This record gives sequence, C-alpha cells and structure tokens, in this order.
Amino acid sequence: MKRRAFVQTVIALSAFPRQGNWKSWRVNGARVNKHLADLSQYGANPQGGVSRVAFGDADVAGRRFMMDLMREAGLTVSVDPVGNTFGVRPGSRSAALPILFGSHIDSVPEGGNYDGDVGSCSAVEVAHILAERGYRNRHPLHVAIWCDEESGLTGSRGFIGDLPRDEVDRPGRDGVVLAEKIRRIGGDPARIAEARHGPGSIAAYVELHIEQGGMLDERGINIGIVEGIVGIHHYDVTLRGFANHAGTTPMDRRQNAMLAAAELVLIVDRVVRSVEGRQVGTVGRLLVKPGAPNVIPGQVDLTVELRDLSTEKIERLWTQIHEEALASAKKYGVTLDYTLQHTNLPALSTPAVRAVITDAVQGLGLSSQVMPSGAGHDAQDLARIGPMGMIFVPSVKGISHSPLELTRPDDVTNGANVLLQTILRLDQQ
Amino acid sequence: MKRRAFVQTVIALSAFPRQGNWKSWRVNGARVNKHLADLSQYGANPQGGVSRVAFGDADVAGRRFMMDLMREAGLTVSVDPVGNTFGVRPGSRSAALPILFGSHIDSVPEGGNYDGDVGSCSAVEVAHILAERGYRNRHPLHVAIWCDEESGLTGSRGFIGDLPRDEVDRPGRDGVVLAEKIRRIGGDPARIAEARHGPGSIAAYVELHIEQGGMLDERGINIGIVEGIVGIHHYDVTLRGFANHAGTTPMDRRQNAMLAAAELVLIVDRVVRSVEGRQVGTVGRLLVKPGAPNVIPGQVDLTVELRDLSTEKIERLWTQIHEEALASAKKYGVTLDYTLQHTNLPALSTPAVRAVITDAVQGLGLSSQVMPSGAGHDAQDLARIGPMGMIFVPSVKGISHSPLELTRPDDVTNGANVLLQTILRLDQQ
Repeated sequence: MKRRAFVQTVIALSAFPRQGNWKSWRVNGARVNKHLADLSQYGANPQGGVSRVAFGDADVAGRRFMMDLMREAGLTVSVDPVGNTFGVRPGSRSAALPILFGSHIDSVPEGGNYDGDVGSCSAVEVAHILAERGYRNRHPLHVAIWCDEESGLTGSRGFIGDLPRDEVDRPGRDGVVLAEKIRRIGGDPARIAEARHGPGSIAAYVELHIEQGGMLDERGINIGIVEGIVGIHHYDVTLRGFANHAGTTPMDRRQNAMLAAAELVLIVDRVVRSVEGRQVGTVGRLLVKPGAPNVIPGQVDLTVELRDLSTEKIERLWTQIHEEALASAKKYGVTLDYTLQHTNLPALSTPAVRAVITDAVQGLGLSSQVMPSGAGHDAQDLARIGPMGMIFVPSVKGISHSPLELTRPDDVTNGANVLLQTILRLDQQ
Repeated sequence: MKRRAFVQTVIALSAFPRQGNWKSWRVNGARVNKHLADLSQYGANPQGGVSRVAFGDADVAGRRFMMDLMREAGLTVSVDPVGNTFGVRPGSRSAALPILFGSHIDSVPEGGNYDGDVGSCSAVEVAHILAERGYRNRHPLHVAIWCDEESGLTGSRGFIGDLPRDEVDRPGRDGVVLAEKIRRIGGDPARIAEARHGPGSIAAYVELHIEQGGMLDERGINIGIVEGIVGIHHYDVTLRGFANHAGTTPMDRRQNAMLAAAELVLIVDRVVRSVEGRQVGTVGRLLVKPGAPNVIPGQVDLTVELRDLSTEKIERLWTQIHEEALASAKKYGVTLDYTLQHTNLPALSTPAVRAVITDAVQGLGLSSQVMPSGAGHDAQDLARIGPMGMIFVPSVKGISHSPLELTRPDDVTNGANVLLQTILRLDQQ
C-alpha cells in the first residue's frame, strides 16, 4: 500500500506541479471546532445540546450561519427546490462530474452538538483549506447541507428524486404541510421534480459523521471506515387476546395479550443474539390496551425493528422470530398479526471510495476500523446515484441523540483531515 | 338441613301468623327484568351497553328513575349528603337496627347493563313484593343505591366515614371537584361528615351482584355465595435502563428496560400460578419511554396488581416477584424501584349472613358455590360497620365492564329471589 501511495503521489505531482505537497495539507482544527461551537448556539438548550428540528427557526438561522461560512470559504451558495443548501467550488475540467461531500445540521428534539454538525462544519472547512491553498480542483466540488435528515432523509431523497408529491403536500405530525416547511428554508416545493439527480450524475459522495455507537471510543480507534449503512425492517405487530376484569378472571381463564407481548420481546432479543454478526433487533414502542391496572390487556401493539447489512439475514431472523412468537401467542390464546411497515434497503459503500478513505487514513497515520453504520444517513440515498463513502469519528460512550453527545475536538480535526485528504485523492483520480 | 328449614318455618309462622307461607314468596321476575331493561335506556350506547358514568347526565337521570321505582314500591326516598339514594320501609320494632340491601347503577365508560343494575333493581323489587304482601318487617329496611361505585366506592366510603375531606374538594381527572359532582346527584358536600355510620349501626348489609367472572356460568351453578371480597395490592414499578440508538448500540452494550419489563411480566404470571389458590396477578398498564421504534427503551413504568382473600399471601407473592424481578433487571443493567400505590384490605363476609343466604338458596332449590369475589364492591366498606353478605349470579362467559356483559333473565330472577328470602330470614332472626 505504501508503494501504491507513492506512485499516486508521483502522478498527482506531475499532473498538478504547482499544488506542491498536498498530502501534507491539514485542516485548521481550531477553526473547525470553533465553527462547531458557534453552530451550537442555534437552538441551544439550557441543559446543553440543541433542539434544532428541521424547518424550525433554529434550523433556518443555523442554515443561514452555514451559508455565511460557505461564502467565507469561497463557495458559491445556492438552495435547491427541496431546501438543500449547496456551496460550490467550480472545477477545471468541464466534463468532470461533481464530487459531493457534506452532512446535515438539523437535530432531533433535545439532541446533541455533533450529529450532522461535525460533517457539515468539516465539509466547509475542507473547502476553506482548498481556497486558502489555491487548489485547482478538476471536479466541481459541492458542499451539501441536506435538509431534514432526522425525520426521514427528506433532502437527500428529494435530491435523488425519491420524495413523492403526496408526501410534500401532506401535513406532518405538527399539522404543517411539508411544502410550507420547505419554503421556510428557501426551497421551492412546486419545482421539486427539478431537484432530481439520476444515477451517474455525481463522481462521488463522501460524508463524515459521528459514529453514534461506542465501538471506536471503547477501542480507542481514530476513524471508522463505513462498509455500508444497514438495512432496516420495521414490523408493526398486533397481539389480540381478550380484555377482562383482572379481579374476577382466574389465571387459567385469561387471554392476556401482555404475556404474549413479553414473550415476543424476549424472543426478538434471543433470536437476534443467536447468530454471529452485528445485527440488532429492538422492540422500542409497545402500547397496551386498554392499559388500566385492573384490566387484563386485550391488545398489545408493538414494533420490531431489525437492522443488518444483509436483507437476507434480516428476513431469516424475522422468519424465526415470527414462528416462535406465533407459537408462544397461541399458548396464551392470543392471535398475532403483523405488517412490514417499512424497509430501508442496506446501502453498501463503494469499494473504490472505501479504498481512497483507507489510503487517506494511512497517510495521516491514524488508526481505523471497517464497520457498518447502524444508523441511517443521507449517504444511503446518494449511494443510489453514484459512488459513496462514509467516515466515522468516535462518539464518547456511544451516546447520541442526547445533550450528552460528545466527539472530542481532536477527533473532529482527525475526521476533517481524513475528509480533506479523501476529497483531494478523489479529485485527482 | 331440610329438618332445620322446617323448624325455622314453624318459628316464623308462630311469630308472624298473618304473614302466611312467606317462604313461598317469590319476586315478580318479569317486572324486575323489565325494570332492568328500562334502566338500560339511561346512557345507552348505540353498540349496546351503557356509559352511565357516575355524576354524569345519564347517572342523574338513572337515579331519578330508580327513585320513581322506589316510590312505586312504597319506599320513602331520601338522598344522603354523599349522594347515596335510600328507599326506606320502616320497621315495627323501634330499637331494631336497619337491614340494608342494594347496589349501584353507575357504570364504567362503555360498560354493560348488569354490573350494579341487577342488585339495584332486585333490591327495589324485594321491597315491592314486601309491600304487595303487606309484610310487617321488624327491622327498618333500607334499599341503597350507592353513588360512584366504579371509580372508587365513593358513596359507601362516605357512608362509613372514609371519604377524606381533601378528596371531596379535589378536582378529578375531568377537572371537576368531587363536591360539585356530589351536588349534581342531590348530595350536600358541606354536610358529608353527617353521612357517617359507625360500627354497630346496621343489622346487616346484603348485596346481590353479577359474578363478573365465568365460574358460575361455566359450571352451570345458579348462585355464588361470597366468602369474601379479595384484598388488592397495587404496586407501581419503574425499570430504568438507558435510552440509546437502536441502530448503533450493539446488542451486548444495551441497558434495555423493555427486556427487564418483559421478564417481570412473565415472573408475575409464573409466581402467582406457582401456589395453590384463587389469587390473581396482573400487569395491566405498561408505559415504554421514549417509545419510538428506533430507540432502545430507557424506562418502563408498569403496574402489578395482586388480589387474594389473604393479605399475607399477597405479601408473600410480592416478595418473591420482587426478588426475581430485581435479579433479572440486574442482568440487563436495569434498576428496579417500586411503591405500593394502594391496598384494599380483604373483606370477609359474615359467617352468620352467609349461613342465611345458604339457607335461602336451599329453600329455593337452587345450586350454589362458595367463592371469593375478585372484584371490589361497596359491600367491602359496609363489612367494616356490620355483618355483610353477598350473592352472585352468573355472568355469561364471565364478560364484564363490556357491552357484551350478560346475565340471563332467569338468573336475575333467581338472584332476586335469594335476596328476598335472605332479607325475610334476616328480618326474622
């Protein structure tokens, strides 16, 4: 690998003699961490962290802040019809496809200061360094701040043409239609179809993000090289027994949906753990009806969420869970019905991009580990139209979607440097 | 037993020569069942059953209907300060304590037409028969329609002096203070203390009620003779783990409160079934936080309700449940805290009253079974001030608190006859 890196350097130097020793270029770590701290003011909560929910006032203000940073980094700012913000640095080769890199700045309610923000600030920082170095990129470079990542990858779905019209025109849980919200951040919902980018329209997409799990932190590893974003199967399960008086119905005359639900919860855990691998399975929502202390539960509605890089494995696990849960429900005189409420297909990162990231990590002398992403990311949408890669930095204790979320400044700087060196390498391929 | 009944008859005849063969007296089955049907109009739901929640318009109208029936039965109607309705038939012996009998007519939301109503209409019917027969009772006979049985035995607690002032002045879940509601049904909340009856102030209290369980129906038995009303311990349990991302947190790095809750649900069931007896245990309410499909549950709040005629047994079961659940929670990195939210002490029926009911049942040639009441009843309050007995009639399939609640007309008539013959016997003791 050393040998190959050397050959690449020689090629790069011969192609861009004036770029000098670009492999030694580094981001301004103090600056990117300061921008991260500045961004955390938008939607800041008294107890720490932010509530910068997509399309809210804090999101609007935060996006304006990011546009200012983009301009300082010499980027030309635009907002596409979906509401995604782009900062463009034109390329020298007219036929070259754009290289995209970025993340999101919207948060969950009472979220943290790193999820999305690290990748967004670092992407602008990379552009800033290239401007300061006077780098002549071949490919157009597009720094992307996607909109509304947290509630369903809205911006990146719009970008790849996967945001159905009826979703745009439908009111959300807050009663406001998505179109109205998109307008708030400068989008143009009537022209959403024009935002679509088809397969083959980008050279690559690279996203730097916090791990949101605890593996890198626990093992003291600098960088995670994402092999793919796991697929998700979300099943809605309904268990129906018979609601009855908790005092007058003997134990052997009950059809208690709660007992069948409890068995199912334990079955999910046991089956998911029963095979090798990093698959996860969770019963996160469970509603008991009627839900009174003195009434035997007649119905329980619950969700089963299974995640893995292999859809085939997810389906195999579900088959076993369903079989066992059905048998157990029967034992209690309870019926089990389910629907596959939605699926996210796994999105594998592109081996060639992964190799470039690996090369960049090695060039920086950092430690790394190849790993799946258990969380969904805009990158999974971009993978459908072009080569995709993702870079993870450690989350302290794996805490995320919480004010306690933390990625240490050195790790932010490391991640931004890997992103910088990855973009430089991709541009020169 | 035949011989004893004969002796009693002779005594009865000698004491009340003009009463004739009172043991052959029967209620008017058609009339009591018609009154039951008439009462079911108040608060009737389109899908069947009633929503005659205490203090609501339907309850007010239903109580007015019952007062009219009382007057037709020759009773003198009054409402006590708590809002309980009484129909009085004076007794011939000035020193004799009153015999009380009755039930309630308020229902749960979307309840049935028999819970409370059967006992209320039958009590008035008994008085009606006595009036028609020109019976000269020694004891004053008080037909009672208690108020607000369903949400906490409000009326009977007021009657025995166990309705704290702050409860009267406190707003309920609907935001209306109890005092205001009591006024709606003709009570006088300022004078509630005057409603109190101390121990030794009644000769007996007898209540006819539907079983609300399925035992009598299943075994084809006419009458249940209640040995006591079970005690209830209601525990509020909180399991605390750590809420985290369901995608990025590996299975072996979770503190999933839902898993500990599932184990607890199954432990309650197993421990309660592990010993002989008719005790029951139920987890009826269970709330998962935060309750999102993609978040590992960080907290589960649930209720454990245990019922038995023996408080000692309830406590023994809980000790075992708590011990096992604590160990299981620990296994998952989850903490377990609980509070004993409330207890109802068991109320045993009075052996002498039970014997009179047994005698009445035998005199009518009906089959019977001694059994506990798994549900709470106003009778448990009255047991604290005097002799108490309860008569159960079958509930078809044990269904209660439901529009599907049903007690067949013949069973209503049987129950009313047992009540009539019990009151006659008690009056003549």
